[in-house]
Amino acid sequence: MAKSVFYHAGCPVCVSAEHDIINLLGTEQVEVVHFGTDKTRIAEAEKAGVKSVPALVTPNGNVLHINFGASMADVKG
Amino acid sequence: MAKSVFYHAGCPVCVSAEHDIINLLGTEQVEVVHFGTDKTRIAEAEKAGVKSVPALVTPNGNVLHINFGASMADVKG
Repeated sequence: MAKSVFYHAGCPVCVSAEHDIINLLGTEQVEVVHFGTDKTRIAEAEKAGVKSVPALVTPNGNVLHINFGASMADVKG
Repeated sequence: MAKSVFYHAGCPVCVSAEHDIINLLGTEQVEVVHFGTDKTRIAEAEKAGVKSVPALVTPNGNVLHINFGASMADVKG
């Protein structure tokens, strides 16, 4: 199965959600992308439909915005 | 492991998220509660911290609000 991708920006809400998602899905099932350390992935996330972080993009391409840490505008700002 | 509980109210956003969560976690790991058919669980959800649906309450009690379908006020209304 393809991995899900968890996008975040290091905010407290993001880190908490990251722990929950990894606990639920398992480390093997999730690629974690931190925009603070990898800004090159921002365009890819926006193309996938990510509007805010934290967000999980499922293997079939659906975007699950989980709670609310920051908008993508904040992430880019 | 205790199950997560997925609360929803039958809205399109809820149903889409339900499919995604079940695909990701597996049917065995998630109890699905539909407020439209089980209003008696609303109080329990609010006590757990659910502010809107769809929402997933993890086995350790964290609440993940996933996208946004309806507020709990709408659900109760």
